[in-house]
Amino acid sequence: MLRKLAVFGTHLNSTTLKARMATAVTCKSLVYEKPGDPVEVLSLKESPVPSPSSLKDGQILIKLIASPINPSDINTVEGKYPLQPELPGTPGNDGLGRVEAVGPKVSGLSPGDQVVPVAACPGTWRSHAVAAASNWLRVPPTLSPEAACALSINPPTALLMLRDYVDLAPGDVVIQNGGNSAVGRLVSQLAARRGLRAVSVVRGRGDAAADAELARELEGLGAALVTTPERLKADLAAAGLPPPRLGLDCVGGEVALALAKTLEKGGTLVTYGAMSKQPLAIPAPLLIFKDLRFRGFWASGGFSKDEEGLARKREVLKEVADLFEEGALDAPKFKRVALEDWKEALESIKDGRLNSKLVFYQDK
Amino acid sequence: MLRKLAVFGTHLNSTTLKARMATAVTCKSLVYEKPGDPVEVLSLKESPVPSPSSLKDGQILIKLIASPINPSDINTVEGKYPLQPELPGTPGNDGLGRVEAVGPKVSGLSPGDQVVPVAACPGTWRSHAVAAASNWLRVPPTLSPEAACALSINPPTALLMLRDYVDLAPGDVVIQNGGNSAVGRLVSQLAARRGLRAVSVVRGRGDAAADAELARELEGLGAALVTTPERLKADLAAAGLPPPRLGLDCVGGEVALALAKTLEKGGTLVTYGAMSKQPLAIPAPLLIFKDLRFRGFWASGGFSKDEEGLARKREVLKEVADLFEEGALDAPKFKRVALEDWKEALESIKDGRLNSKLVFYQDK
Repeated sequence: MLRKLAVFGTHLNSTTLKARMATAVTCKSLVYEKPGDPVEVLSLKESPVPSPSSLKDGQILIKLIASPINPSDINTVEGKYPLQPELPGTPGNDGLGRVEAVGPKVSGLSPGDQVVPVAACPGTWRSHAVAAASNWLRVPPTLSPEAACALSINPPTALLMLRDYVDLAPGDVVIQNGGNSAVGRLVSQLAARRGLRAVSVVRGRGDAAADAELARELEGLGAALVTTPERLKADLAAAGLPPPRLGLDCVGGEVALALAKTLEKGGTLVTYGAMSKQPLAIPAPLLIFKDLRFRGFWASGGFSKDEEGLARKREVLKEVADLFEEGALDAPKFKRVALEDWKEALESIKDGRLNSKLVFYQDK
Repeated sequence: MLRKLAVFGTHLNSTTLKARMATAVTCKSLVYEKPGDPVEVLSLKESPVPSPSSLKDGQILIKLIASPINPSDINTVEGKYPLQPELPGTPGNDGLGRVEAVGPKVSGLSPGDQVVPVAACPGTWRSHAVAAASNWLRVPPTLSPEAACALSINPPTALLMLRDYVDLAPGDVVIQNGGNSAVGRLVSQLAARRGLRAVSVVRGRGDAAADAELARELEGLGAALVTTPERLKADLAAAGLPPPRLGLDCVGGEVALALAKTLEKGGTLVTYGAMSKQPLAIPAPLLIFKDLRFRGFWASGGFSKDEEGLARKREVLKEVADLFEEGALDAPKFKRVALEDWKEALESIKDGRLNSKLVFYQDK
């Protein structure tokens, strides 16, 4: 039987109110003991909320407010992702929490602070967590839950891909596929802010009016050109843009290769996803004669491996939080769901029925 | 009718002597007007040797002594190579010449000097050339024709691929396919000289004794391990070597991918050829999670594009010439052929009947 999901303020779900009342006294966490289909291997555990007096040196007690469901979280539970929490463990890599209590020897965080995770595998699909204070970062209380809860992965991905691979100057062209994805939209905004011209490749909607509507929307975010793989070559030529210096690829296969072929000599293609599940087949002349460079980006594992990496990630997360605060970035819109409704939420993603990201949400 | 080729001192060919006598007074050059099968589109042109008094400012008259036939020369004539001489033009990118005369305003070169080309598309498949002195580099008179005539392409390829991509320290492992190629053999020697451990992947000979014989030969040049694509994984594990930091690929396809999979996290694969004619199909996790970097190297077009590039190439060619002089590198062995026998020479390559490189050769 399918129950409807709680979407923003609209209570479509009879269990929601009961759930919220329960979170005051109970700690809930989604837990799995072995990898597999999330709907099969996860279960919702309940336990008492840890008491502040039980906190050890450097620990904090966090109440999770919003924890997104990302594709990489699903892959992690399936065992298809290189980073794994210790098992039994809890999924979830992004999230916004509120500090409820701080243990001994914690500096820089106080009860009531809004915090986001910095280190990998924080396990945010839960109502409360006891964690090392050093693995969480305070963000401004004015930052919206929408912006804050997805701070750790997509925005650093967009920011660092535009910064760490090619030295770009205003007027330079950046091309990306997945232009309508969360990262793609952030890339368009960040690129425009730096005076870069972003070419966003999206899948055709199969309808000229819908294509035009999406193009208007993405151009409104800052994209210089919105096109499809089929129209890419002609549209680029017609726009009279110089060849892109950087390509950003979350699709792989033919679409990634089409991107690479547009790059200038010595250009770089950075792969950060593979939605097509196809490998990137590079003809040797693109490497030898065109001197193209192929790299990868991984937000979760690529930095934050050590003290230096964690310090760098803190800096990037602060920078991104500032951009949201300034209004330089639009916060993505999410649909809220209660932790108790995890099974329907995961089923609904599997069926591909939802267009936007779901977030496990508890009121502050 | 197939005439035999002149191989080293052995005169197997009745036309050779006549050819040599003729070169004293006649300038011969292989010329093509449009791209195509070299045997079809090339022809041997004869003309008077230019007189020293006709040389313009900065020009020299060169007698070519040895001009190798490289696969890239064939591809150029076929029109399949990005660099093309102006047409009508003459193929040939490597070569050893002797300066016969110098024109006005030539400094640093004198008649009798041995010279090799620096700039791209010198067109060395000829007996004499009038050229810009700035495009040729003097090499020591004691350098053997075998070492000198192939100085411009293979040795810089091996040297720069080991130097310009990954910062390697003694003990580090480099893995290459085409370990038995001219470049592969140079890589093994240069790697051993720097204390690097070269793993050379070669095609199995289909015969254990022949495999062992080739392995001994390549290990004699400095390879730390010689293996085949089939045995690669097991041999690497058995040898107890750390994962390679750099891979060098002239094959492409499956064998290139097998190389990439052995690399350490953050390792680099440099492609400089594609003997298999297969693209390199990279699964996204190798880019994203293993942070591998894929690059290309091109000796002919990669540098020497401008004054700075030419200066850099001169430095590299001097360095390579010194290594040959010191005996640090073995000169490759070539088979000599008269320019008049060009058709048989090219046919014999096409048939794949010869194992070693052919060189158009005239006595000094």
